[in-house]
Amino acid sequence: MDLKFLKNLIVPAQTKIVMIIMDGLGGLPLEPGGKTELESAHTPNLDALAFQSALGLTIPVGPGITVESGPGHLAIFGYDPIQYRIGRGMLEAVGIDFELRPNDVAARGNYCTVDATGVVTDRRAGRIPTEISQELSKLLTAQIEDAEFIIKTVKEHRLAIIIRGTGLSTGLTASDPLKNGLPPLPVCALNQESEKAARLMNLFIDRARKVLATQKQKPVANMILVRGFDNYPNLPSFQQVFGLRAAAIAVNPTYRGIAKVVGMQVLPVDGDMLEDEFSTLEKNWNDFDFFYLHVKNTDLAGEDGDFSRKVSIIEEVDNLIPHLTSLKPDVIIVSGDHSTPSVLKGHSWHPVPTLVYGKYVRADGIAEFGESACRHGSLGILPAKDIMPIALANAGRVIKWSG
Amino acid sequence: MDLKFLKNLIVPAQTKIVMIIMDGLGGLPLEPGGKTELESAHTPNLDALAFQSALGLTIPVGPGITVESGPGHLAIFGYDPIQYRIGRGMLEAVGIDFELRPNDVAARGNYCTVDATGVVTDRRAGRIPTEISQELSKLLTAQIEDAEFIIKTVKEHRLAIIIRGTGLSTGLTASDPLKNGLPPLPVCALNQESEKAARLMNLFIDRARKVLATQKQKPVANMILVRGFDNYPNLPSFQQVFGLRAAAIAVNPTYRGIAKVVGMQVLPVDGDMLEDEFSTLEKNWNDFDFFYLHVKNTDLAGEDGDFSRKVSIIEEVDNLIPHLTSLKPDVIIVSGDHSTPSVLKGHSWHPVPTLVYGKYVRADGIAEFGESACRHGSLGILPAKDIMPIALANAGRVIKWSG
Repeated sequence: MDLKFLKNLIVPAQTKIVMIIMDGLGGLPLEPGGKTELESAHTPNLDALAFQSALGLTIPVGPGITVESGPGHLAIFGYDPIQYRIGRGMLEAVGIDFELRPNDVAARGNYCTVDATGVVTDRRAGRIPTEISQELSKLLTAQIEDAEFIIKTVKEHRLAIIIRGTGLSTGLTASDPLKNGLPPLPVCALNQESEKAARLMNLFIDRARKVLATQKQKPVANMILVRGFDNYPNLPSFQQVFGLRAAAIAVNPTYRGIAKVVGMQVLPVDGDMLEDEFSTLEKNWNDFDFFYLHVKNTDLAGEDGDFSRKVSIIEEVDNLIPHLTSLKPDVIIVSGDHSTPSVLKGHSWHPVPTLVYGKYVRADGIAEFGESACRHGSLGILPAKDIMPIALANAGRVIKWSG
Repeated sequence: MDLKFLKNLIVPAQTKIVMIIMDGLGGLPLEPGGKTELESAHTPNLDALAFQSALGLTIPVGPGITVESGPGHLAIFGYDPIQYRIGRGMLEAVGIDFELRPNDVAARGNYCTVDATGVVTDRRAGRIPTEISQELSKLLTAQIEDAEFIIKTVKEHRLAIIIRGTGLSTGLTASDPLKNGLPPLPVCALNQESEKAARLMNLFIDRARKVLATQKQKPVANMILVRGFDNYPNLPSFQQVFGLRAAAIAVNPTYRGIAKVVGMQVLPVDGDMLEDEFSTLEKNWNDFDFFYLHVKNTDLAGEDGDFSRKVSIIEEVDNLIPHLTSLKPDVIIVSGDHSTPSVLKGHSWHPVPTLVYGKYVRADGIAEFGESACRHGSLGILPAKDIMPIALANAGRVIKWSG
């Protein structure tokens, strides 16, 4: 569905849509023939919701393609992630409320550890404490030639790296090899315009390595990895294309960032617990048409390979569902931005279990929310970007098309 | 999925993928409510494999579209068959190791029989013996004006026709009416550039008819039919787009040809039995990342309308599956290039039963490989070209996309 096509059919309505995104929701069983994390979890509230919902499996970008959170979220937000790009670096910078300027180049950085031969031993430097990360980031911030390298700790090992200067462009390859056991790569220019940025970035990385080597008292990280070079994208907003006053409820900076990029108002959350997110939803219920509520820990548990922790977090979400349903939203979407099976300890390509609840949904009558159940649902196996038009229709916000 | 998009995400891995293509695999029941050929076959090994696989139904080109082997194979090989074209004539010529030159025009030919009124009575001239076919082909090879007409028997009634000369182009219609009971059509130019080729082709066909009429001692074929005019395509290879060292195991020249066109190494098969193909797989196991193994007889039985023979051939394949599984491939694909239901005695548009087995597949737990079973699988009903990215992902050969 082209957003321009949809935009012309959007009408106002007094309805509310809530989208719960459990990050990395989709999973795999521990043993062939077993249950996934979601299927193992005791989820009476989600199961009851599923019974009154249309179920399906969403594909974020394409069959077999594993995505990062950026394109995964753009897709479930209704944007074709191939057409609308959003760099990881940009997301990190926006997520920490850094005021990017139009010509800034932003990148995602990681503190990591390398061995004596330069091979990456831990891409996340043991998820070093945020306070130590912040101290190191101050040391790394530097001027190189006429460019300013601004290094900001997002959380733990995660960095936003902003390069501000003249003649800089974003066509750069990553230094992050994306797997432990491999050495960092040199940053390369993908075109002539980005040659200066590539050269400075490599100088910066070399300097960072030397600076980190001097920090003997904090030997937790001795190298940085960079990827996802980008500058500020110009996406049509939720208000523009869907006619929605949209609010985002997310604790984690990346997701606050992506919500901001699509024009959502990012709500302050008092605390960093799941309950705090649901309280924020209740508190702001009257002021918005659309709420995006993000659950990060499902993905973290999956990435750590902790099947039972992922199960627990899903059960925690299930416990809070009555807070949501008591608000009587017209449409509820429960989905993920991608799969993160514990057995793979990382994001994966597997389609994501998804439910769309609403008064006018053609409900499948399947009283279970899980991968197998969703496979039998009436939404079928569909591109994630198709969920928003379906939700809007169910919310009475799309008029008839006359051709 | 655009191949260029996928190509940028491909990484090397020590994994092996095997793709078994049973030509014309999909079928139809003899009676409404009955079982198809595949469902009727006793296939304990394929059923056991299905249990650990994701199942689906693949659509080669589009809903309702029946394909020949060329586009059917391109699709299951991951190439969009609308974007990447490969003519039947080209395939035949390449399949017999004929060294095509860039400006050659190649066509698929058939020896056929026509009655006294010129109507085609058998499009395959009773599948005349290859030796007789070869003798006739020598007689048909000729110079017409400044063009050389090179006629090569592929097998039985099947011919590769190569036209070599100046000012020739491939925009030509077929003379083959594709059904018995109709007269051959004149070859027509689809554009100005191909007018010379059309005129010479009609002269050649007329000459062929006269030459064949003189062969009273071999009255097995008295006419030829031509179709599939094309020249050598320039497809990106399996190595280029998927990073795979790919090998093809096929007895039939057409399939050896198409494999060669996508850059596979075509392995010599010692014998022409199915067991010989599986032995070739075992013998070459260490030298390639990807194996394509082609089973022709399923299609031939379907085309002959022989339901029970098609069932037997599927059972024969099933018997050999343990030879495959004992090699412990990381990913196995079992599918077809199109359907050939015996009741239709020809190729059809019906989606093709497909399984993708692998350690990280989200298995459907359906212990049956058949059309109905595949309809309930988690791959859904999907374009055939989507199978390769899914197989590559399951083989750990696709990295995460960051947007």
